[in-house]
Amino acid sequence: MQRQALAGERTWQLVTSLVTEVGPRFAGTPGDAQSIAWAERALREAGFDRVWTEPVTVPRWIRGTATAEILAPHARRLEVVALGGSGSTPPGGIEAEVVEVFDVEALEALPEGALAGRIAFLSRPMEQRADWTGYGEAVPIRSRGPAVAARKGALATLIRSVAIGPDRFPHTGATRWEEGTSPAPTAALAVPDAELLHRQLAAGAPVRMRLVIENEHAGEAVSANVIGEFRGRERPGEVVLLVAHRDSWDIAPGAQDNGTGVATMIEAARLAATASRQGPRRTLRVLLTANEEFGLSGARAYAAAHAAETGSIVLATESDQGGGRAHGLLVNFAAEDAAASGELAALLAPLGVALRSGEAGGGADLSPLAPLGVPLVDLDLERARYFEVHHTINDTLERVVPADLRQATAAWATVAWWGAQRAERLRSRPPQPQ
Amino acid sequence: MQRQALAGERTWQLVTSLVTEVGPRFAGTPGDAQSIAWAERALREAGFDRVWTEPVTVPRWIRGTATAEILAPHARRLEVVALGGSGSTPPGGIEAEVVEVFDVEALEALPEGALAGRIAFLSRPMEQRADWTGYGEAVPIRSRGPAVAARKGALATLIRSVAIGPDRFPHTGATRWEEGTSPAPTAALAVPDAELLHRQLAAGAPVRMRLVIENEHAGEAVSANVIGEFRGRERPGEVVLLVAHRDSWDIAPGAQDNGTGVATMIEAARLAATASRQGPRRTLRVLLTANEEFGLSGARAYAAAHAAETGSIVLATESDQGGGRAHGLLVNFAAEDAAASGELAALLAPLGVALRSGEAGGGADLSPLAPLGVPLVDLDLERARYFEVHHTINDTLERVVPADLRQATAAWATVAWWGAQRAERLRSRPPQPQ
Repeated sequence: MQRQALAGERTWQLVTSLVTEVGPRFAGTPGDAQSIAWAERALREAGFDRVWTEPVTVPRWIRGTATAEILAPHARRLEVVALGGSGSTPPGGIEAEVVEVFDVEALEALPEGALAGRIAFLSRPMEQRADWTGYGEAVPIRSRGPAVAARKGALATLIRSVAIGPDRFPHTGATRWEEGTSPAPTAALAVPDAELLHRQLAAGAPVRMRLVIENEHAGEAVSANVIGEFRGRERPGEVVLLVAHRDSWDIAPGAQDNGTGVATMIEAARLAATASRQGPRRTLRVLLTANEEFGLSGARAYAAAHAAETGSIVLATESDQGGGRAHGLLVNFAAEDAAASGELAALLAPLGVALRSGEAGGGADLSPLAPLGVPLVDLDLERARYFEVHHTINDTLERVVPADLRQATAAWATVAWWGAQRAERLRSRPPQPQ
Repeated sequence: MQRQALAGERTWQLVTSLVTEVGPRFAGTPGDAQSIAWAERALREAGFDRVWTEPVTVPRWIRGTATAEILAPHARRLEVVALGGSGSTPPGGIEAEVVEVFDVEALEALPEGALAGRIAFLSRPMEQRADWTGYGEAVPIRSRGPAVAARKGALATLIRSVAIGPDRFPHTGATRWEEGTSPAPTAALAVPDAELLHRQLAAGAPVRMRLVIENEHAGEAVSANVIGEFRGRERPGEVVLLVAHRDSWDIAPGAQDNGTGVATMIEAARLAATASRQGPRRTLRVLLTANEEFGLSGARAYAAAHAAETGSIVLATESDQGGGRAHGLLVNFAAEDAAASGELAALLAPLGVALRSGEAGGGADLSPLAPLGVPLVDLDLERARYFEVHHTINDTLERVVPADLRQATAAWATVAWWGAQRAERLRSRPPQPQ
């Protein structure tokens, strides 16, 4: 099965088809609807026994204009993209002085009203690290910074893109507002534009900027989770759950975020289901969720709709890290199954995947299920260049490396096969208080 | 002097100042005028004995809108940028079927009228090579392709960007029209968008596209060459000419094309002039030209205005290859001075620069002077990643490597010093028929 995956072209063909025929597929858009139809067709063509959709209500946010221009001391147009959930400037835009603040902690330390009448500029760079901590440490300037800046009086907030590399793509992503507040205008600057703004501010003269940001919060829309199953021949009620989000940001073709995840999970399940003539012992279920990017709508709807059967999930795993090679394995099994990690690691070793210390957490779309005690397997992917393209227009097929995709497919097929075939089912863990 | 250059920050400071305080500086724009003032100030502050400007008439082309959208079979917005000199679509834009043609040779082979009512798509990729031949072979789809496609009846032309790498930046550049024709609408697609269009076409169904391209040919404007001299103490009438173009494309901050060239030539001349307390034996002249990008206006004006003194140029060299390290030396000296290349190579060897076979040609801005017999020195720079950013919004300071810039400055300072100090002047070559 691993050999078949390492020689196979199906994952690549699936992601190629998705980005060529659908492209951007943000929650509630026509592309979202097209990608539901695409996913149903892809699952059927891959031979899944049963394919269905479950409706999901998603927030509808519609991107409009976003322009930013330094007026003084040195006029310049900047490359910006509104953050998901951004509000709008008043008609005609705003002109104001820019105040640089490093991060959310520095923002919180400002006196109330300190940013009144100003544009806040959050400039904390993201560090490149081998794990997710670089992203985790930088992302609060995007997710929470604009809300805190608004509380301190800012008219609008610009952030340095949560990104690595020097390329001039602004990176979007979701921002959250505090209870009872209305969304303020907020956008991300491309890294070189954040550096330029920083240099102009560092020279000491006041920097004035003109901002026009227009978006619409347009209520809700209906989207769907798309689900496919290979039914288990012996224990159909025990489910190995393979999760990937089907949506992308509106500006992004979403090849790596998360076309590769969608394609890998479909093909991994197919390989695991067809590895023996009899079919899988347990059920293999692929869940392609709606709207991960702008609020985890599909993951939450799935957890709510399937709450009664959480105990039937014997293993859950998610792909949402781009199209890199798998190199690490983390698990979160019940104490009685501690030894099982060694079994799985031995199967993955030929692919260059090694057991890591620490606990699997699932991805964002597993966050509603994880606390319920579902056994989790994480595959850690190589992602040295992922945050160059993440949430940008540059997240295209041309940045995906076919050989890496084949290796990750082989690794997930191995995880799926192991979970489905193992003599004993993995036990649930004790649920955690939420 | 080399040691001083390798430890110096002045080249970096100059390019930082230019891109921070001026930015894009396309011929005839306000940025062009600002960069004239910037260059005069930079030359004065570097201690040049004499700084002056010479007026240059430049064509004025004003970029407007450019949007491209696949309508069928799979709707998509594409990333495009109009080519310099592009005309406009009729009001409201055009909708038409797209025909893919590989290159200019394939275009020429089509019967007359073969493209009537269609949009031509020239799809030849650029190959990455260690020398310029990859660019030289691909660039005709940009410089000549749109004119030939128009002659074959095309309503408009899209080209694959003349670029390497997978990043989603469309690359602009000049296109030329045939005598007596009016400019047609023409734009470059980012590489991933060209690949997407190719994939849709390869699937066999007709691809329809909507194009809106609006630009203005607005007559002429006045710009300037900016010139600075360190006057020779013994032979002031013998001139070492260091050339770099001051302009950039309108969409590009022009850090590498050609901020690094401008900064390197200013600092190389300063280092060469101040290497000995007495100053240079011959005159060191830095020529920062107007409008290289859209017609070599400054280079032509200089050659015409200084035609009578061409014989006084003892060495000419140009920097217009980005901000990479110098690794190769080419010369084009009179036969009697053949041995001089060895002298210069020995001085450059400690920097890792080696003499190459072949003849120096100067850069584009030396093309009007080269046939007149001026002795030329080319430094070949490492440019593995240059054509990722060339003529794009991504040509920013963040892509420049300070250590590389210091090494190239040391190399050009060496060339300048050698040309100015050598006991015998380099002789002119026989003029070539033009």
